[in-house]
Amino acid sequence: MHEEYRFLIDCGEGTQRQILQSGLGFKRLNRILITHGHLDHILGLAGLLSTFMRWETIEELDIYAGAWALDRIRDLLFGVVLRGARPPIAINLREVRPGVILEGEDFTLTAFPVWHRGQDCFGYLFEEKVRRPFLPERAAALQIPSGPWWRDLVNGQVVTLPDGRQVTPDEVLGPERPGTRLVHVGDVGRIDGLEDICKAADALIIEATYLNEEVDMAHEFAHLTARQAAELASKAVVRQLVLTHISRRYHERDVLAEAQSVFPETQVARDFDLFQVKRDAPLVRSVARIE
Amino acid sequence: MHEEYRFLIDCGEGTQRQILQSGLGFKRLNRILITHGHLDHILGLAGLLSTFMRWETIEELDIYAGAWALDRIRDLLFGVVLRGARPPIAINLREVRPGVILEGEDFTLTAFPVWHRGQDCFGYLFEEKVRRPFLPERAAALQIPSGPWWRDLVNGQVVTLPDGRQVTPDEVLGPERPGTRLVHVGDVGRIDGLEDICKAADALIIEATYLNEEVDMAHEFAHLTARQAAELASKAVVRQLVLTHISRRYHERDVLAEAQSVFPETQVARDFDLFQVKRDAPLVRSVARIE
Repeated sequence: MHEEYRFLIDCGEGTQRQILQSGLGFKRLNRILITHGHLDHILGLAGLLSTFMRWETIEELDIYAGAWALDRIRDLLFGVVLRGARPPIAINLREVRPGVILEGEDFTLTAFPVWHRGQDCFGYLFEEKVRRPFLPERAAALQIPSGPWWRDLVNGQVVTLPDGRQVTPDEVLGPERPGTRLVHVGDVGRIDGLEDICKAADALIIEATYLNEEVDMAHEFAHLTARQAAELASKAVVRQLVLTHISRRYHERDVLAEAQSVFPETQVARDFDLFQVKRDAPLVRSVARIE
Repeated sequence: MHEEYRFLIDCGEGTQRQILQSGLGFKRLNRILITHGHLDHILGLAGLLSTFMRWETIEELDIYAGAWALDRIRDLLFGVVLRGARPPIAINLREVRPGVILEGEDFTLTAFPVWHRGQDCFGYLFEEKVRRPFLPERAAALQIPSGPWWRDLVNGQVVTLPDGRQVTPDEVLGPERPGTRLVHVGDVGRIDGLEDICKAADALIIEATYLNEEVDMAHEFAHLTARQAAELASKAVVRQLVLTHISRRYHERDVLAEAQSVFPETQVARDFDLFQVKRDAPLVRSVARIE
């Protein structure tokens, strides 16, 4: 969630039940990002759409996915769910290609390709725009009355005060501060090529389906081991690492131990976990899935 | 489950997760009966098939449903899940029409039409065949040695004993005893016309989505109230009533109280409940769903 924006990343079978159980509700849940078209990442869209249509809590649903996934989603939603009927809410299937796919007033959402079985698999980067913090002590020293002048200065405008003085933004704004960066990678089988996009991320959320003892199987099915995920976090010097998509064959503590031996700031996401991205920034809610 | 037969009735979203949690496992789960084609009764087939294909625990899957539901299931499984690929296990879509749809050595499975929104909605009757119990005390009195002669007599054959005597089944079998009858009705909006098929059932499993205070809404959406379900149980003089498909808006105790005021032998099925059909007969496992 970011201000008025709320995103759901992937929608496996049973997602609506998990959302109900979590108490998060469906309100404004109108943007869904799909990492790839495997069934365990898209089947929940059918039930979710069916519920949205019945309750009509939202007027429009944007689903972002690569071309291959989008074809499958189209068959699921328009073929199976709607069966040719006109949907009571607008359903926008938006094809994802690498690059910026959504730009808000103060953040961008960027898709980047990742390597997994099948075509058109993507990771997503949420990035706040660079900000210059407003310094109230400077404004006080300059005797700028609070009110619309503050807002205009924050927005980079030169203002004229009631007493006739002109104040420029530079006089009350601090140095540029990069925005929070959150990277989400779904199923993925290789970490090479991901270092740049993850560089200095405040949080990296990525799969870790296997342990290193099964690295061959991880490779065969194009998944990562906990060690590999941690190596990426370490190389990219991220602030924290959150592992998802843990196989139910493992104990969480073993996954954690393997990753933390490489990158200590690691957590394993369980269903309904809520993570705070360090740096006073957005909350990330996990509805983690079990492989 | 009946001897080597195992049935799953309806397969809503998340069914495979519930089966995993229940510990029942997927073994021999190769016959699925669908009551009707609404999404909350069929969406789980996609995930279940996907799992079956990966694990290949069964070689063949029979899905029984009315024509309309079967079309939708075909689009879901062959369109969305398989996308034209050849399935690694045989998937048999079997169109249900009223009448006997499966006959085992000692039971029959009968489909009967029920009234709900949409076409081709069915209830299912599991019925053991009439049996004549073998009376060991008679066999002993006649000095029939145990062995293949017993089995042949049970199967209605006249046998010749080693000492040359002929024995007919009538000499060692008791009077006919009707087999256990189990009736399952999914979503349904009217009880008239169901009395005959439910008559003297050992167990009636049926939906009760609403309470009587919302009988108008029940009618509008073609569902039953707890009272109506109990009235059917009472008119048909069944042995026990099990209510499913309870709306999450109600307390279970209110549903139970309303039904029991009409038909005391009522239970409400919760997820993972296991019911024993009285009369030493088959166990019925509920993976009840919340509306």
